[in-house]
Amino acid sequence: MQLNSPMADNAYARAGVDTDRTGRAIAGLVEVLRTIDPGRPSRSVVGSGHYAAVIALDERTGLALSTDGVGSKVIVAEQLERYDTVGIDCVAMNVNDLVCVGAEPLALLDYIALEDADPDVLRQIAVGLKAGAEQAGVEIPGGEVAQLPELIRGHPSPRGFDLAASAFGVVQLDSLITGERIAPDDAVIGLPSSGLHSNGYTLARRALPDLGEPFGHHTVGDELLVPTVIYVRAALDLIRSCDVRGLAHITGDGLLNLLRLNDQVGFTIDSPLPVPAIFEAIAERAEVSPEDMWLAFNMGCGFCCVVPADQAGTAVALLDGHHPGAARIGTVTAEAGVVELPHAGLSFGRR
Amino acid sequence: MQLNSPMADNAYARAGVDTDRTGRAIAGLVEVLRTIDPGRPSRSVVGSGHYAAVIALDERTGLALSTDGVGSKVIVAEQLERYDTVGIDCVAMNVNDLVCVGAEPLALLDYIALEDADPDVLRQIAVGLKAGAEQAGVEIPGGEVAQLPELIRGHPSPRGFDLAASAFGVVQLDSLITGERIAPDDAVIGLPSSGLHSNGYTLARRALPDLGEPFGHHTVGDELLVPTVIYVRAALDLIRSCDVRGLAHITGDGLLNLLRLNDQVGFTIDSPLPVPAIFEAIAERAEVSPEDMWLAFNMGCGFCCVVPADQAGTAVALLDGHHPGAARIGTVTAEAGVVELPHAGLSFGRR
Repeated sequence: MQLNSPMADNAYARAGVDTDRTGRAIAGLVEVLRTIDPGRPSRSVVGSGHYAAVIALDERTGLALSTDGVGSKVIVAEQLERYDTVGIDCVAMNVNDLVCVGAEPLALLDYIALEDADPDVLRQIAVGLKAGAEQAGVEIPGGEVAQLPELIRGHPSPRGFDLAASAFGVVQLDSLITGERIAPDDAVIGLPSSGLHSNGYTLARRALPDLGEPFGHHTVGDELLVPTVIYVRAALDLIRSCDVRGLAHITGDGLLNLLRLNDQVGFTIDSPLPVPAIFEAIAERAEVSPEDMWLAFNMGCGFCCVVPADQAGTAVALLDGHHPGAARIGTVTAEAGVVELPHAGLSFGRR
Repeated sequence: MQLNSPMADNAYARAGVDTDRTGRAIAGLVEVLRTIDPGRPSRSVVGSGHYAAVIALDERTGLALSTDGVGSKVIVAEQLERYDTVGIDCVAMNVNDLVCVGAEPLALLDYIALEDADPDVLRQIAVGLKAGAEQAGVEIPGGEVAQLPELIRGHPSPRGFDLAASAFGVVQLDSLITGERIAPDDAVIGLPSSGLHSNGYTLARRALPDLGEPFGHHTVGDELLVPTVIYVRAALDLIRSCDVRGLAHITGDGLLNLLRLNDQVGFTIDSPLPVPAIFEAIAERAEVSPEDMWLAFNMGCGFCCVVPADQAGTAVALLDGHHPGAARIGTVTAEAGVVELPHAGLSFGRR
């Protein structure tokens, strides 16, 4: 159970939000759910806290499950009245999590809660879901549309909607990737992000409130709406070719996500991928420190793969074919629970 | 893809909501999603429109998937500040759908979008989810909590939340229950509901706005918050004992749900289960016609099982052991697409 936190803890604190309380709230929820007795032995192989849960279907086959939403990025879509890309984000947030345990995503169910079921808006959302599904190689055999005008706030009304999904895939239990085999000296390879992806929008929208403002070759609104990259085909291809020891979808907590794989090691990121201009603009306008930026955003790297050092070259060549710009960004260290960015003089630990 | 419609079409129309437009909107979404090309042959065995989607994992095993939410029933929980039962509704809405295809539910992922992550509220929600999961025999190995104050309306703020989930189960493909084997003269057995379950709350809350008003041995608020019955263990037990030809979770469209199983037959419900007092109160206060009531609410019957006539006695005895009050309520007819309630002089067709 992950908190889809709209910004890093320190920025949260400055905004008057008590993240300790939020963390406590979610920990309390998880604690109760862990005590569920289904009346038979639990089939959980990988549980809460990793990117995807895994349930054993039989002795060999695992069913991987994940659920996530687009969060407040949908507000940008509402304000621009362009709804045909957030479906890609919705698929991406789920399948990028699912593939982190080595599972092949098969299907996704969408959940759309909205104020008003406008046919054109729903069709546009579907166009995005379809594009994302085809990029990920999944079907969408069902879903739910809940018209809940009393529950959903619009920007403005009645354009409000929330877009989430759940995704399912299969993984052979003897091929599960959990991160536990990650060892010092392993190579960390980064795959470029397309921008913010689907995290950090509360802070980003506060920093750049004018969506019509020119930004590079387009506008702030265009930039904030760029869809999340889907890494599924690249990750599955890598799994077939290398000894993949860890896969991390880089979301709300930035590079701290690496520690979700294994906190008995550390990570030194000495050659980070180039940081896209949108992050510099946010840091400047909202006066966010480099530390907070790295803890809230993907900073140009949307997905990390950990492989043995001697396979780094093969892995980079393969991944670059899928996502040009993929590169080795760092190395696993023996410093348990620490992520270092030596070029920026930063060092983070999981709180 | 089902619309979680807050009231029947006619009542909708009176409230100024264009249900044709809503139906068109959802049909348009489904139409686009049906054209998804995952780059491999589709594994869908049962698709959109049935209670659960089924994906073939291999030649013998199907993975059943469903997703649904509690809808505006959560507003009653907010107003009463009692959050420990809506989790049961959340599990029920999903697992009761899943078992309709004959699948054994295994796991559920919750999705909670909220204004403010209050530890006590989340713990109470978890208590309900746990109770529901244990009734259904499922685990909850993961989920998502999204703190989205800009997206969620509270009643009052910051109590707002939306509670949904997705559920997964397995079914042997040669034991799938789709309703296609339903034939005239089969028996329809009804299982009692506990009240509104999780449908019709927009209309119910309009009819009975004072949650503190005495109602029977408790209050209107207590009555509106009674959790949805979970029929999983009864349905699975019946599947092991009888030739079950159809299972229908009776939700937003009332007995019209029977036609989701098979619209080449009809259903005569000549002995409906007793109608709980809450439905009479809503009809009276909101001046809803009997026809609209039967099209919006479960009217005392939360789940229907269709078995061959000669197995009706066995089935009723077994089901009554799980849900006292279970009874044969009607018969399958040859009148394609028609549900009749002769005692009330009503006849419905799927629009």
